[in-house]
Amino acid sequence: MAKRENISSSVIRRLPRYYRFLRELDKQGITRISSNELAKRMRSTASQVRQDFNCFGEFGQQGIGYSVAELRDEIENILGIKCHYPAILVGAGNIGTAIANQVIFENRCFDLVGVFDKDENKIGSKIGEINIRHTDDIENFCNNNSVVTAILCVPKGAVEELSERLYNLGVRSFWNFSHYDLNMKFKNVIVENVHLSDSLMQLCFRINQEHNN
Amino acid sequence: MAKRENISSSVIRRLPRYYRFLRELDKQGITRISSNELAKRMRSTASQVRQDFNCFGEFGQQGIGYSVAELRDEIENILGIKCHYPAILVGAGNIGTAIANQVIFENRCFDLVGVFDKDENKIGSKIGEINIRHTDDIENFCNNNSVVTAILCVPKGAVEELSERLYNLGVRSFWNFSHYDLNMKFKNVIVENVHLSDSLMQLCFRINQEHNN
Repeated sequence: MAKRENISSSVIRRLPRYYRFLRELDKQGITRISSNELAKRMRSTASQVRQDFNCFGEFGQQGIGYSVAELRDEIENILGIKCHYPAILVGAGNIGTAIANQVIFENRCFDLVGVFDKDENKIGSKIGEINIRHTDDIENFCNNNSVVTAILCVPKGAVEELSERLYNLGVRSFWNFSHYDLNMKFKNVIVENVHLSDSLMQLCFRINQEHNN
Repeated sequence: MAKRENISSSVIRRLPRYYRFLRELDKQGITRISSNELAKRMRSTASQVRQDFNCFGEFGQQGIGYSVAELRDEIENILGIKCHYPAILVGAGNIGTAIANQVIFENRCFDLVGVFDKDENKIGSKIGEINIRHTDDIENFCNNNSVVTAILCVPKGAVEELSERLYNLGVRSFWNFSHYDLNMKFKNVIVENVHLSDSLMQLCFRINQEHNN
């Protein structure tokens, strides 16, 4: 655990997947697992698994394997899953509603504290326990709540103005579902982009390759 | 273009992003761009850009830069964006409806030919021009349409049985929004997973890191 500062970004990218598998194992009542077995389940290699876990401490014991719960807890700590950063979501369309429900349901990393939309017909209806507010109320809301993160589920055309407002309110991290490139606009913000169409193009490429071989 | 078979998977991963930027440039009426300028816009490096584009042919000319349209068309060809593989979507909840609308709107890579749900209340209503059908009709539908890809927007618990049915109907590629690990079940299928919670955990980790530094 003393080693934590050395964790490479590629290891970090793999952590959520390890976390999902370890939670699954825990649910199945499996308390210990070898790197071989974990690698087999994850379609990885034992040496990759050992190398990754070595980055953040001594969890494995030769012949005994890893403690599922310890490893899961440590990854939970590294990722900060219990932090519950206050987040708002803007754009309560289909994707926004789905994402809001997921964030509420998973109840980790972030607490969804506000949902905003500009459509008057949606104002006052609820997602989970949260009232949908008008986007005009964002300033007021953010000034009264320590919002850390904004989840952007609005069309590309709306992001520029919206992100500027949020930035001026002190929001410095974004989960961005639009195709607007926030990193180009602000230098000192954390942006996690979800580009669904990129994922679709990857799938298309792989099907193409298969058909042409 | 003769070099195409040598394109590495990391270059392929970057292609959709290049494609998005090149389309944007084209819309702005920009016909040529240097690797330096493109790199700056994409927050990459000029040498990375040149190296990537070298993989699939001779597009750049020293001092003149790349032809935006040629480069965009070549990436379109490589990714197979004009293929229009027939696809169905199962699970017309919020996320499913959002995804269906996006696939219909983008109108590339895939043609959405059917949408299915098991909720009787949804049957007969439409997403775009497409009637929502009952999941019981999947067999009949797939037997009469050459469905290549299934987009899975159903809960994890429903995927095992559903994917088996689709596999038996000849479907070999999946855009998977559930957390069920399809690659573990079938060896010879193409799966593109969208793990939204992984993305959320990455964001959480980066905020954590920032707060702790």
